[in-house]
Amino acid sequence: MNSAEIITVGDEILIGQTVDTNSAWMGMQLSMRGIRVNRITSVSDRREEIISALNEALGRAPLVLMTGGLGPTSDDITKETLAEYFGTRLVMDYEVLAEISERIAKRNLEMNENNRRQALVPECCRVLANRSGTAPGMLFEKDGKIIVSMPGVPFEMKHIMQIHVLPMLESMSGGRTIVHRNIMTYGTFEAKLAERLEGFESQLPDSVRLAYLPAHGVIKLRLTGSGDDGENVRWTVEEQVRKLYEIIPDVIYGENEVTLEETVGRLLLDSKLTLSTAESCTGGRIASLITSVPGSSAWFTGSVVAYDNSVKTGVLGVNPQTISRFGAVSEETAREMAEGMLRLAKTDYSIAVTGIAGPEGGTPEKPVGTVWIALASRNGVTAERHRFADDRAINISRSAYTALNLLRKQIISR
Amino acid sequence: MNSAEIITVGDEILIGQTVDTNSAWMGMQLSMRGIRVNRITSVSDRREEIISALNEALGRAPLVLMTGGLGPTSDDITKETLAEYFGTRLVMDYEVLAEISERIAKRNLEMNENNRRQALVPECCRVLANRSGTAPGMLFEKDGKIIVSMPGVPFEMKHIMQIHVLPMLESMSGGRTIVHRNIMTYGTFEAKLAERLEGFESQLPDSVRLAYLPAHGVIKLRLTGSGDDGENVRWTVEEQVRKLYEIIPDVIYGENEVTLEETVGRLLLDSKLTLSTAESCTGGRIASLITSVPGSSAWFTGSVVAYDNSVKTGVLGVNPQTISRFGAVSEETAREMAEGMLRLAKTDYSIAVTGIAGPEGGTPEKPVGTVWIALASRNGVTAERHRFADDRAINISRSAYTALNLLRKQIISR
Repeated sequence: MNSAEIITVGDEILIGQTVDTNSAWMGMQLSMRGIRVNRITSVSDRREEIISALNEALGRAPLVLMTGGLGPTSDDITKETLAEYFGTRLVMDYEVLAEISERIAKRNLEMNENNRRQALVPECCRVLANRSGTAPGMLFEKDGKIIVSMPGVPFEMKHIMQIHVLPMLESMSGGRTIVHRNIMTYGTFEAKLAERLEGFESQLPDSVRLAYLPAHGVIKLRLTGSGDDGENVRWTVEEQVRKLYEIIPDVIYGENEVTLEETVGRLLLDSKLTLSTAESCTGGRIASLITSVPGSSAWFTGSVVAYDNSVKTGVLGVNPQTISRFGAVSEETAREMAEGMLRLAKTDYSIAVTGIAGPEGGTPEKPVGTVWIALASRNGVTAERHRFADDRAINISRSAYTALNLLRKQIISR
Repeated sequence: MNSAEIITVGDEILIGQTVDTNSAWMGMQLSMRGIRVNRITSVSDRREEIISALNEALGRAPLVLMTGGLGPTSDDITKETLAEYFGTRLVMDYEVLAEISERIAKRNLEMNENNRRQALVPECCRVLANRSGTAPGMLFEKDGKIIVSMPGVPFEMKHIMQIHVLPMLESMSGGRTIVHRNIMTYGTFEAKLAERLEGFESQLPDSVRLAYLPAHGVIKLRLTGSGDDGENVRWTVEEQVRKLYEIIPDVIYGENEVTLEETVGRLLLDSKLTLSTAESCTGGRIASLITSVPGSSAWFTGSVVAYDNSVKTGVLGVNPQTISRFGAVSEETAREMAEGMLRLAKTDYSIAVTGIAGPEGGTPEKPVGTVWIALASRNGVTAERHRFADDRAINISRSAYTALNLLRKQIISR
């Protein structure tokens, strides 16, 4: 198995009511195991569409992973279509039925006809038990090719992939090695980064490719190496990664999908330092990012979301005159918020953010996107002014990440 | 134009480093205009793959929207491939060049070769100016069919769609009408909902379809009607929507992609009520959701993220003995957090959440996923115990939405 295709089934994908996140997850898992994904296809819940997409995919690859259309409701027809495609009938799988009954009972619900129908499977398939949901996965073989159908609910699909499909693929893996390395950067622009890496790109060996993947201000640099000699591929990629660290050390914050909040958490944990935040325009986003990391109670004490000025003065102790003189969005207010939070939470660091996220509230002097970020510690307070975008969601997200990056730089320069 | 296909280009999609959100957005826009999306295809940054996907899509539909592969870096080859496909050469577009220079100057950056290369366009295309980025969109016509290529950066694609592509499609729209209505529900399970809607489903006219779209605890019910008589289609769907409100009024919180945070914000605004939150396990997520809604400063005062017990006692005024006697995750602590926040922020409502998000911290009596939610107002405090999942991310998200839903029900029952 050196290549595969992914088919996601569901009208909700085509009309844009569901973003297909399953394909990305499956693509990454396959790719990490040296299996190239040729193509991802999304089709509607219609018999002919499913059949033609499956035929085409099997014409190009020996492995096809499908998700979707296995739910308990009448718009889900993948199972019936696959039974027809493989010329077989649906039969009751009593093991699956018992598992479904048990799951339903645990939730204190009653078994109904829809639940029972989920235990029907095509007679020729291998059933892949799904312990995180009610629809089982199904594996079919045809002319030496493998077709796997899984539920569209992401964590059910992931469960079936991890328990059944990935171990099977690992046991079948062939010779070719593909190695990906992701270098995570923050605080620069794509064109600027490309300019700094012009020389690097021109010296890259043919077996290694570089891609720029920007998202929310983070630019991921992906190095992909491939070849038949696994050891050599890994070594070549490793060498190029080392060069990247030499050329752009200032913007690299981590590797392999690590987030800024994870990097900051790790730095705080390793240095036994603690953090609190005082947030106005980010509205709790920084705290939410930090606490999304398991174990964050070891380095994060809490946050005051001071959306209203009364909370800035009443809880954080910002001087009302500071606000009336300089404004809620000002260096002075940001500094006092950070200092106030440091006193209140007794942490090693406090980050404060105050800005105009938009769409309302901008002025000629302080347009939408103007944000002050202050960082307080026992050694004093530093503050930075930023001008992000015209878009509320972007302003909130950039403010939060830029604040985390400011803290990151401060910790590593200690 | 009654049908279309979408092609997204980029290795990063196939290897799962980028989730393709563009297709969903474009699919929704097309669908809302009565244009059915047959298929979404994602292919790699390789010439042959792009060409074969384009050929296949044009064989099935008169309109193909493409995104990706137009960036300034060397892995981006869509533009060159399209020039080849349409048998033309790349020429410098001086209008685009001037726009790029201006954008670069505004950011205080210097123009480089990569930026200049973005102003090269295939000679036969119509350039679709991109005022939110540096890569322009391109429109090609071939045998009466239309092909549009746009950058992969979501807000640049959306800009080009809104300014150029959608107005063009609207001016060309044919006879058939497709109407979607989305009814948003929270607080039930898919199989349970399907059971309650069995009778409803069996009486649906042939021209209307129902789909269940669960995501993060929200189940979206999508009704799709189609037919040649637009007025009749709209009326038929409307009638079915009315029936839904009669059968499941308890779980419907809104329509058409509205979020719980938007619904709650609208309810608070309309009733001139204010809210504050005191969050432990949700770590600021509720505040972050609420403040993602523009204008939220009118109804939201602030939040105390009391991650550490010292913040629960020191800032929120929770009695230390309550925590030592009942635990930080208890009805008593949740109630005192909500009451403390109500005093501190002087709002009409305060929501407090305390729970065990996991993966660590569970006990036999209080397993991971145990969450107490309290809601305080001048009329007193109510509290609910929940048991969500074993997964940290799900526990945080469910806790936040369940808290918002509790508030929603309280407001509408006033």
